[in-house]
Amino acid sequence: MSRKRVVIVGGVAGGATCAARLRRLDETAEILVLDRGPYVSFANCGLPYYVGDVIQDESKLLLASPELFRKRFNIEVRTKHEVTAIDRGRRTVTVKDLEAGTESKEPYDALVLSPGAAPIRPAWPGIDLPGIFTLRSVPDSREIRHWIETRNPGTAVVVGGGFIGLEMTENLRHRGIAVTVVELARQVMPPLDAEMAEYAREHLESHGVNLVLGEGVVGFEQAGGSELMVRTQSGATFDADLVVLSIGVRPETQLARSAGLEIGDRDGIHVNEQMQTSDPHIWAIGDAVEVRNWVTGQWELVPLAGPANRQGRVAADAICGRETKFRGVQGSAVCGFFGLTVALTGATEKSLHRAGVKDFAIVYLHPGHHAGYYPGAKTIHLKLLFRKSDGRVLGAQGVGEQGVARRIDVIAQAIQMKATVFDLEEAELCYAPQYGAAKDPVNLAGMIASNVMRGDMELAPWSEVGATSAFLLDVREVHEVRAGALAGAVNIPLGELRARLKELPRSKEIWVTCQVGQRAYYACRILAQHGFRVRNLSGGYNTNSMVHPEEAKEPVAV
Amino acid sequence: MSRKRVVIVGGVAGGATCAARLRRLDETAEILVLDRGPYVSFANCGLPYYVGDVIQDESKLLLASPELFRKRFNIEVRTKHEVTAIDRGRRTVTVKDLEAGTESKEPYDALVLSPGAAPIRPAWPGIDLPGIFTLRSVPDSREIRHWIETRNPGTAVVVGGGFIGLEMTENLRHRGIAVTVVELARQVMPPLDAEMAEYAREHLESHGVNLVLGEGVVGFEQAGGSELMVRTQSGATFDADLVVLSIGVRPETQLARSAGLEIGDRDGIHVNEQMQTSDPHIWAIGDAVEVRNWVTGQWELVPLAGPANRQGRVAADAICGRETKFRGVQGSAVCGFFGLTVALTGATEKSLHRAGVKDFAIVYLHPGHHAGYYPGAKTIHLKLLFRKSDGRVLGAQGVGEQGVARRIDVIAQAIQMKATVFDLEEAELCYAPQYGAAKDPVNLAGMIASNVMRGDMELAPWSEVGATSAFLLDVREVHEVRAGALAGAVNIPLGELRARLKELPRSKEIWVTCQVGQRAYYACRILAQHGFRVRNLSGGYNTNSMVHPEEAKEPVAV
Repeated sequence: MSRKRVVIVGGVAGGATCAARLRRLDETAEILVLDRGPYVSFANCGLPYYVGDVIQDESKLLLASPELFRKRFNIEVRTKHEVTAIDRGRRTVTVKDLEAGTESKEPYDALVLSPGAAPIRPAWPGIDLPGIFTLRSVPDSREIRHWIETRNPGTAVVVGGGFIGLEMTENLRHRGIAVTVVELARQVMPPLDAEMAEYAREHLESHGVNLVLGEGVVGFEQAGGSELMVRTQSGATFDADLVVLSIGVRPETQLARSAGLEIGDRDGIHVNEQMQTSDPHIWAIGDAVEVRNWVTGQWELVPLAGPANRQGRVAADAICGRETKFRGVQGSAVCGFFGLTVALTGATEKSLHRAGVKDFAIVYLHPGHHAGYYPGAKTIHLKLLFRKSDGRVLGAQGVGEQGVARRIDVIAQAIQMKATVFDLEEAELCYAPQYGAAKDPVNLAGMIASNVMRGDMELAPWSEVGATSAFLLDVREVHEVRAGALAGAVNIPLGELRARLKELPRSKEIWVTCQVGQRAYYACRILAQHGFRVRNLSGGYNTNSMVHPEEAKEPVAV
Repeated sequence: MSRKRVVIVGGVAGGATCAARLRRLDETAEILVLDRGPYVSFANCGLPYYVGDVIQDESKLLLASPELFRKRFNIEVRTKHEVTAIDRGRRTVTVKDLEAGTESKEPYDALVLSPGAAPIRPAWPGIDLPGIFTLRSVPDSREIRHWIETRNPGTAVVVGGGFIGLEMTENLRHRGIAVTVVELARQVMPPLDAEMAEYAREHLESHGVNLVLGEGVVGFEQAGGSELMVRTQSGATFDADLVVLSIGVRPETQLARSAGLEIGDRDGIHVNEQMQTSDPHIWAIGDAVEVRNWVTGQWELVPLAGPANRQGRVAADAICGRETKFRGVQGSAVCGFFGLTVALTGATEKSLHRAGVKDFAIVYLHPGHHAGYYPGAKTIHLKLLFRKSDGRVLGAQGVGEQGVARRIDVIAQAIQMKATVFDLEEAELCYAPQYGAAKDPVNLAGMIASNVMRGDMELAPWSEVGATSAFLLDVREVHEVRAGALAGAVNIPLGELRARLKELPRSKEIWVTCQVGQRAYYACRILAQHGFRVRNLSGGYNTNSMVHPEEAKEPVAV
């Protein structure tokens, strides 16, 4: 039996998974893992929490040592070994021992590239001043911890308000540091649709985070002592004893490029469904590769551990000659800070626009995470996107304090199985008063969307509510309207609607709103059956407050 | 336009939903809801928590008043009105006004029966003694509360250890009452498979609940003062200041039977997929009807609010001439007590046996509810059942302190969509360290089952481990084995296995175990590739402790 020799470059999520899976499939293969860093198989996603001292013991981050790989899997792991070149013709890699400074060649039958992605660190003036950090590795996190523990910083600027930036923000606050987040986009969490990110913005601000949105950093200056000054495009400056850059990552493709492997349009390594590069002896996995979002059909860079793990398995299966296929990604992600959970799966309105998809509709809802009559129900703000032509579920975003990941996971599974909104309507989920509702938020999302699909309720677009010539009808109770309402809306409480139909115009469309959309739906049904042309502003005033946050802050006289 | 007249008998979950949906579909229909109780649309599932004073305000249980029905939905609700007969020929019902004592007839075009199910109250000696309660209605819960608040009972016996019985148990403990649960089955939560119910048993006992399993009650006696004595089959007696019967419910079919409607084999009203009874003008929904479990193909009585709600919608749609279909039930349920969550969906081993299904396999796993390196990970005990011939997911049961309902819900959605274990393997769920793992418990369940499907790992049956002639191999570390192990198992730690293959027999099958099944799987892969015949005892010693709880308590000498 000829022993297959597999060399794996990079031993974190994807690489480590691939190595272990290879061994399970082929007891005789020679498997060599090379990593230029000091550790393999470390908990990348835990680093912000180690900085924040939520994870206190560094050893917890180290999931498997080279020793364990050797003993358990008969796999050789060499850390502090960098692969500097690939000779595709001879099927060898050049390996530099970073400690000894020596170079050697390692032959391979199969080569797996799992180099990951590097934090972006733009060439801004002052970028190399002490106290400006990025976070990718255990040593990075150790350095930030050391800075915090020795310098005792009072203020920090986090550049970038994405998932990692907000996790860093929470962890720095946990350390007692005042945090300003500077984000180029006009919202936090740019993958989310803007109105859903509003809930996150509100929550962050209510927890004392200073958010500077729609502002790019242009440079850093030393400001006496250890203090830094962060300057933004508008000319504003922010003092900081510590700066963390979290403006995204860039796939590590240098090795692949030098070897002439095909690079995709998004600047990641291009692979086929078996994670095979343009060289049939070389596979690539993890943050460095481009993957297809199978919901939108777009190629994307998705630096997440879940897909990396799955890719590692697929590559191992392919190398061992098994039939296998990476299904692509659907964009499931979650982030938590200060007790709030923000999660999404599938397409967003943004990603559909980018993909040129127009065949979709959106519903909003704001159900409790469990039955309202049981104490402690927390609101989940949900946005569901579905294909208008056939009801296929395309994506969902959820924000709330409890039960958010659960509902987004259920919808993620539904999307994976190509479910329609009718399937969500019929979903049979676990219900007891402290766990959910007889009509679970997932059911409600499906029901509302199904109402649209069946033509029982037409949707009015929130984006046009300011400019429309439609008649705006608010069916809430008077006391609710007093607390805030759409400009120009006429208030007829739902219970009085049947008796007051004469007050409504037959000449124009009526757009109905309430607090969360349910009563407006009831009103729509009444009005439609009485021959009015009527649409529902989905999600009611609760959604409006997020779509038009500035307006919602104005006091309303009724 | 001729106004359709719909009469609905019973205004709780299904009936109330049906009425409201009817109105949304038909603004002109005349809708009359009759209920013999004092309330409609009350929170049935909340009653144990009202008894326990977790829900303190009775009005919280009343989700919609007759007044709201009238104002919002233009629906007439008459409480304390009992329907005593149906004249199918004339299409009228006889209604008794329970307060006035008068009788009247109400005509219908469509009749919907939503009478619910009554708690079983056997004709045991002493059953009518004061202090013995069942719990179905708001007045029932009020009576128990009154008993607790005026008599200050120190001890209670809950007869029946099913979901409601255990919810009652927790709530009585919450009131400071010592509780004995007497359950006829040899396990708590009879719908669960016995070994999964063991986790619940352990948890209940660790919270001071006295469990008497495999024992039926035979009668009650007055024992001086307000105290009762509960006598069981074995002759044992238990003092109780309060007894709650929760031994199941019986569908209220008397009205349907008297009217000659078809009754099914399980003694529920028989309906078609449109929830229509054998009389085309009469529909039936909720706890009183038999429904088809579409996973097992069996007809069942499923007294749960979720299905009742969906049935109410289907009946309303059908009455309004819409194309509609009740998909059946899949048995999703959840119950929580003392911080433990027990949930299930789809088929159990029991229900498959009952249905005569043999084509299935089972895997067990015990993952953390989130990444182990993040503080606070709690174990989820999972059992996954799948069809051996094609990998279709058939059912899952989960027990643990955190994240259980989420995983069971995801699998519920997968089952609904006819997913295979390969789909669970590829599920893309939300991951951040405090929410899950890059390989979520759902992924792990899918991966393990996929290993079986692909022939990478054969399963050994726990039920035969005591009698097998197979060689039992334990690949845990020595210190783990010292804490408890399978009788007769030989210990070779995984890391030493490759070097000690000579110690293993080639003449017989090797059954491998470890703590949770993962290392055993690794060992299986090593051994299989070295030509040994090998099987994994799925779930490892953790599962064994539940399958053979008594044995696991014995100290083990190694």
